Amino acid sequence: MSIIRKIFSKSRSPEDGIFFDAIQEILGFAPNNLNYYKKAFTHRSSNKIDSKGNAINYERLEFLGDAMLSAVIAGHLFNKAPAGDEGYLTKMRSKIVSREHLNELGKDLNLIRFVESKVPLNHFGENIHGNIFESLVGAIYLDKGYDYCVKFIQKRVVIPYVDIARLEGKVISYKSLLIEWCQKEKRHFHYDIFDDNGLDGQRFFGVKLSIDDKVIAKARATSKKKAEEKASQRAYFAFQTKIDKK
Amino acid sequence: MSIIRKIFSKSRSPEDGIFFDAIQEILGFAPNNLNYYKKAFTHRSSNKIDSKGNAINYERLEFLGDAMLSAVIAGHLFNKAPAGDEGYLTKMRSKIVSREHLNELGKDLNLIRFVESKVPLNHFGENIHGNIFESLVGAIYLDKGYDYCVKFIQKRVVIPYVDIARLEGKVISYKSLLIEWCQKEKRHFHYDIFDDNGLDGQRFFGVKLSIDDKVIAKARATSKKKAEEKASQRAYFAFQTKIDKK
Repeated sequence: MSIIRKIFSKSRSPEDGIFFDAIQEILGFAPNNLNYYKKAFTHRSSNKIDSKGNAINYERLEFLGDAMLSAVIAGHLFNKAPAGDEGYLTKMRSKIVSREHLNELGKDLNLIRFVESKVPLNHFGENIHGNIFESLVGAIYLDKGYDYCVKFIQKRVVIPYVDIARLEGKVISYKSLLIEWCQKEKRHFHYDIFDDNGLDGQRFFGVKLSIDDKVIAKARATSKKKAEEKASQRAYFAFQTKIDKK
Repeated sequence: MSIIRKIFSKSRSPEDGIFFDAIQEILGFAPNNLNYYKKAFTHRSSNKIDSKGNAINYERLEFLGDAMLSAVIAGHLFNKAPAGDEGYLTKMRSKIVSREHLNELGKDLNLIRFVESKVPLNHFGENIHGNIFESLVGAIYLDKGYDYCVKFIQKRVVIPYVDIARLEGKVISYKSLLIEWCQKEKRHFHYDIFDDNGLDGQRFFGVKLSIDDKVIAKARATSKKKAEEKASQRAYFAFQTKIDKK
């Protein structure tokens, strides 16, 4: 840790310390300037302005994050789908950065817990989840640069969600793929489902997927089925990675 | 120059040497791997395929370059227009990356001279100029990374063309601004116009703008008026930079 970072850590308020830790956990690396991340979660209803009279809220960061996300996903698809033409790449990217998918990403990280707003959180529509996911990407770009956007998107979008076979509609259900695999390999599996409600009053379900009595994957979603599917996908990829490494 | 670069330079064919120099001149920095740039100018009519059977042409690079260009311009506008909201930023970006503007950028650099195609160049429509401008940005990304895309776009798009006042419609003509300035400062100005036709058979005009008998700016466009306006804008910004440095 550099001297500047040490001084900064010491002078950080207890609230900022908690926020720093939560952001670091989400990013997978340490943020430099927390102000960018605070702005990324400031709703316009807060009516904040800076010393020059410009509004402080996440809307401009959303524009920036959307652009960075599109570029990073374009770069990923370009490399991963060498046989796909321009039309294919465009279609795949639209699926990944769809409003619905961005909302799911934001919800999974429970980003709404950070939102500063004068409007009660349960008054927002679905899209706030995706919007603040984008503004978070914008904050990362300003704070750490493009390469860290790539790192974050790799960790939080590409690895857990972007599966080209699935996007192409070739895989219908990871749950059935996983069950089939367990039966073939004579392994016991078990889905443990529990309520896991968010701050916004909406009902969420958590699921823990165990194989041979060891928890292999966890997931959280708005329906039991979705949570099971997500956990199955994560377990499936975890196993695939292990198999690849052998 | 690194040892690897030296060896590479020595082993380069005379044709590649000429291409390398031309690309370096356009980029403002040395390319590493010429193959990316060759692909950026290969039209699908060439019917080239790689060892895996995938088509070699610029269409996939166009997709990649379009995404990088949008991201770089988003980053630029975010910083340069701190008072602009999301809608404003989106609108300004659309103007900068409009099909018409990209075609102009490609034409100005005369990129079409590099195109490898089985179709005669004068059979292409206007859009090829913008398409190969985008594919060139994609090649830069693959060859040198995001930060070099920023450098290139700064040099070839932002400095010569992106003027927020103009995009907002506040400045109608740089020629009249420049003439006004010359009259106030008691300087002599002169526009020297000449034919400067491209390979594709289209009529182009070149213009040299001299102030006090010194050539200050050059431009090339499809009409005399456009060429004069471009040269005037370049001269205006050249003077602005000098004034700022004083």
